[in-house]
Amino acid sequence: MRIAIDAMGGDHAPRAQVESAIAAASEWPDIELILVGNPGVLEPLLGADAPSNIRIHPAMEVIESDEEPVKAVRRKSDSSMVVAGRLVKEGQADAMISAGNTGALMAVGLLVVGRLKGIDRPGLAPMLPTLDNAGLLALDLGANMDAKPEHLLQYALMGSLYRQKVHGIAKPRVGLLNVGSEAAKGNELTKAAYELLVQAPINFIGNVESRDVLEGQCDVLVCDGFSGNILLKGIEGTASALFKILKRELTATWTSKLAALALKPSFSRVKRSLDYNEYNGAPLLGLNGLVLKGHGSSDAAAMKTAIRLARTAIGNGLVTALADEFKGK
Amino acid sequence: MRIAIDAMGGDHAPRAQVESAIAAASEWPDIELILVGNPGVLEPLLGADAPSNIRIHPAMEVIESDEEPVKAVRRKSDSSMVVAGRLVKEGQADAMISAGNTGALMAVGLLVVGRLKGIDRPGLAPMLPTLDNAGLLALDLGANMDAKPEHLLQYALMGSLYRQKVHGIAKPRVGLLNVGSEAAKGNELTKAAYELLVQAPINFIGNVESRDVLEGQCDVLVCDGFSGNILLKGIEGTASALFKILKRELTATWTSKLAALALKPSFSRVKRSLDYNEYNGAPLLGLNGLVLKGHGSSDAAAMKTAIRLARTAIGNGLVTALADEFKGK
Repeated sequence: MRIAIDAMGGDHAPRAQVESAIAAASEWPDIELILVGNPGVLEPLLGADAPSNIRIHPAMEVIESDEEPVKAVRRKSDSSMVVAGRLVKEGQADAMISAGNTGALMAVGLLVVGRLKGIDRPGLAPMLPTLDNAGLLALDLGANMDAKPEHLLQYALMGSLYRQKVHGIAKPRVGLLNVGSEAAKGNELTKAAYELLVQAPINFIGNVESRDVLEGQCDVLVCDGFSGNILLKGIEGTASALFKILKRELTATWTSKLAALALKPSFSRVKRSLDYNEYNGAPLLGLNGLVLKGHGSSDAAAMKTAIRLARTAIGNGLVTALADEFKGK
Repeated sequence: MRIAIDAMGGDHAPRAQVESAIAAASEWPDIELILVGNPGVLEPLLGADAPSNIRIHPAMEVIESDEEPVKAVRRKSDSSMVVAGRLVKEGQADAMISAGNTGALMAVGLLVVGRLKGIDRPGLAPMLPTLDNAGLLALDLGANMDAKPEHLLQYALMGSLYRQKVHGIAKPRVGLLNVGSEAAKGNELTKAAYELLVQAPINFIGNVESRDVLEGQCDVLVCDGFSGNILLKGIEGTASALFKILKRELTATWTSKLAALALKPSFSRVKRSLDYNEYNGAPLLGLNGLVLKGHGSSDAAAMKTAIRLARTAIGNGLVTALADEFKGK
């Protein structure tokens, strides 16, 4: 299992990338980690006694977080992200992980790694937190802004297979993000997608309203990239606003300050329980290889979580299973 | 100022409707309230010494909350909601308020009251809470699932005029709900709408991400009915989920239980601050008359809030101003 890591992308790169690689390579001797980036920077960080299942693959450029994605990917062919993608494309790596520019990573997926046969649009599929702590896979959350009903069908099939292969859920419950629970609800896109999903070989449980998403009614939530983004950032914004109001209230008087102090650990747990960043490593599903996006602020622990995910997905043959699913389509 | 009230629609009808009418009629002698419904039910509730500026207008049918909207409106022509709509249409009332079936009210708006000349699709425009407590008007939140760019432009113009006339904001800041703040972001709909909004005679501040909606960056938030519904229910669901987790955490130990008890009033205030039901009376903008939707669970206080809103809007000539704005279009 060879995993290429974009060692130069992310807020804490390259240190977090190198540290996590050392920890992961020591813990899992069955993986081979390829740190892609400038050897002059990476070698000193790696040190002399790094595990033997880590190696450096040179790439001299870096795509910055504020660069225009497609342009950057086209121009910087020797960037750590593009080179990591090329390793996957050429079969020299089974997966790549990057915590760099999200748009650029999607472009690397499409332009360098390439689409899986039978897939029109890859989808970005992060895990969202749920009240029962099981989490759900939501896709697409932003790779494809104008989805067609067939794209949503492909997301459903890919998401379902992902939860089976990576999380061992036998019959993942698939829900369609919509404005009401009845079949006839929605816009043209969701109404047409509903018809396709009912007939698909998946465990389709029907429409799920955004109000109920965090209740964890489904294992896979299907949506177009625009609505998904509105939902995801809406959850994030609401949680953040509530904590701001809470803070304002709880520091208003001495009694409330004291009581709040006693509750500090509880508040931290509440905050963490709705933080979707806790799940690191969102797959870009529908590519001819495994591409995982780490969030930009990934530290070494978060990067190691993403490496663990890549190891599980490769070990369980995710990409082959996806290719088999869509090859006749 | 004559305001028709659907006295039979809503969870607490007709009691809350009659009680709020008595309170409002006493406080504001310049309004005339028309309670639309079954006189046999309403007369005893109204009593003998009700204010003289309340009268009953008979309507013998009721549209239930679970009825299929368009069918119900077509079949029940003597229902309290349809009759109230007819009073507005015929100029016998300046506004109508209903806490009944939302879909049916939208159908009454379109089929009975009728669209304003120049408006393609009316929009439902509730207030959302914001961190600075000023609130923002969001439209459309569910009247029109498949919007075109021109519809979003009409929402922006109507929402802007509404905030001027009803809330006295001189130059309301209008934002477009989108997935990123840059102009080029979004799906086909928002990209095209952006171009129209930039040229419109409004104070357009650009795209607003759902993450930032509650921060109160704008006074009017424009969106299609589908995305708006996803956002609104997403906010609602996240707040509710957070309070569930908080409850679980705070009742876990005796110390936390005690501390939480001391903070109970603070928690209630936090809960209320994100409750969009606090603002009652969402206008259906773009109709040939004022139609206000009260939430289904409206009690007498909430209904009175909606009556106050109708009085302000009529007093400030909202519908005439809207008609003037669009008459040449």
